[in-house]
Amino acid sequence: MDKDQLERVAQLVKPYRITSGKGFRLRDFSPADTAGLKSADRAEAKEMLERGVEWLAEQQDMLYAQDHWALLLVFQAMDAAGKDGTIKHVTSGINPQGCSVTSFKQPSSEELDHDYLWRCMRHVPARGQIGIFNRSYYEEVLVVKVHQELLQRQKLHPSLVTKKIWKQRYADIASYEHYLVRNGILVLKFFLHVSKAEQKRRFMERLDNPEKNWKFSAADVAERGHWATYQEAYEDAIRHTASKQAPWYVIPADNKWFTRLAVAAAVVHTIAGLKLHYPVVGAAARRELAAARARLRNE
Amino acid sequence: MDKDQLERVAQLVKPYRITSGKGFRLRDFSPADTAGLKSADRAEAKEMLERGVEWLAEQQDMLYAQDHWALLLVFQAMDAAGKDGTIKHVTSGINPQGCSVTSFKQPSSEELDHDYLWRCMRHVPARGQIGIFNRSYYEEVLVVKVHQELLQRQKLHPSLVTKKIWKQRYADIASYEHYLVRNGILVLKFFLHVSKAEQKRRFMERLDNPEKNWKFSAADVAERGHWATYQEAYEDAIRHTASKQAPWYVIPADNKWFTRLAVAAAVVHTIAGLKLHYPVVGAAARRELAAARARLRNE
Repeated sequence: MDKDQLERVAQLVKPYRITSGKGFRLRDFSPADTAGLKSADRAEAKEMLERGVEWLAEQQDMLYAQDHWALLLVFQAMDAAGKDGTIKHVTSGINPQGCSVTSFKQPSSEELDHDYLWRCMRHVPARGQIGIFNRSYYEEVLVVKVHQELLQRQKLHPSLVTKKIWKQRYADIASYEHYLVRNGILVLKFFLHVSKAEQKRRFMERLDNPEKNWKFSAADVAERGHWATYQEAYEDAIRHTASKQAPWYVIPADNKWFTRLAVAAAVVHTIAGLKLHYPVVGAAARRELAAARARLRNE
Repeated sequence: MDKDQLERVAQLVKPYRITSGKGFRLRDFSPADTAGLKSADRAEAKEMLERGVEWLAEQQDMLYAQDHWALLLVFQAMDAAGKDGTIKHVTSGINPQGCSVTSFKQPSSEELDHDYLWRCMRHVPARGQIGIFNRSYYEEVLVVKVHQELLQRQKLHPSLVTKKIWKQRYADIASYEHYLVRNGILVLKFFLHVSKAEQKRRFMERLDNPEKNWKFSAADVAERGHWATYQEAYEDAIRHTASKQAPWYVIPADNKWFTRLAVAAAVVHTIAGLKLHYPVVGAAARRELAAARARLRNE
């Protein structure tokens, strides 16, 4: 990508990046926003996405060769906001040897017996890798906050479950992310922001279309009943854990084509900031290469 | 143990517990200290240790049954300070199903490719368990600080390796330990404080006694050459990571019998503070038990 294209990417993603929770309100963000792109621009948007994904694949190869940095992309959203589709479209093209996706479902009893970061920490990407969390430790301040009976299952001693528990969790998560960034693991957190009306439309589609039936679960509709509480929990989580080191991206998610473009733009923009290049081979190593070449030739 | 015995334990361990780094200086602590106990008291000390270990085994069973708390005991020391022997003497008697020891040696290349807490976090004990770290993530601010060339092997991008790196590591370690404690995993950190003269005596013994030869490594003597730098690194680490939540214990280590007693006392004192008991069965559960008994009898 040339300088102009990267500048365009930077402009596209800027309104959605939250680097400080101060004054953050979810209602200031419209799920239907498309950064001024119209339906008529969809072909162009698709082309931009393709170019971005191609570029990401090239960069990932350098990330791997350089072995200094890792990327952790965290995806959180209400059901049917498009997490799976976005992950698929943004990462298809990247060499799977350098990219792994971990989906966090209901914790197992072994996982519940450990501290809540334990099951996620194990899957934090190694240097040179892109790691994707489909849901994450943020569930601890989202679903667990909305359904506080889930805290019971974590077997914490009652003296540890106080009013301060959510603020403690926000602080601990922020500290952990800061630690990761200090160790070369860049953390990008995506909230795919879908509207209640659009979720209904997508649920209906899952019910009407036999090929999409498998994606529907009655539990999803029950969770929808807690919509307002979830939105508050997201707002609180973003407010307390957005930072310059580990920004949140509130990505409009009513239009799938735009969601994918905006997520890809955020990743492209972050990687561009690393100014990756293949490791430069020094004079001594060049001499070794020359010697190896000579040995092979004379074999 | 009765109240008087527990009070005696509390008094014994108090001088060695560091809950704030403010004004902490290693030279204020003597490796030869024995809390006023004389060589003549060794038989009594041995009996106290035995009673303590027995009591720990009983308590561990309740810890496991209650499933609220875990204990993480971190051991750090210069070579030959007695880590292995102390771990052996303090934990023998505890049901191994509820207790695990992890020794951290030189990191593997897979481990070096991850953030430095990664290899340790995986072994943090589950609720109901006692976990022991024989060396730990503190090596990151000890051996790595003394031999800064080891930082190279961690492949951090040069922009991340600044003068602030040690303070950042202290802060990140302290935050992580605080998080663990908030989640019911109590963290006790032991520095077995041996003198340079006693280390020499023990090294000599390893060289002279064929049965102890295997414990000797020439590298240990090389490390001894960095004695003063290591002592500074320990002092700095303790100063920056001692807290009420996760105290350091600076245990005199020139007399093995006292080292073991003092470490056992610290563990006993901490567990006593939890006031463990077997889970109390409520009225509904008691009815279930009665029904089960009746069913079995009528079989």
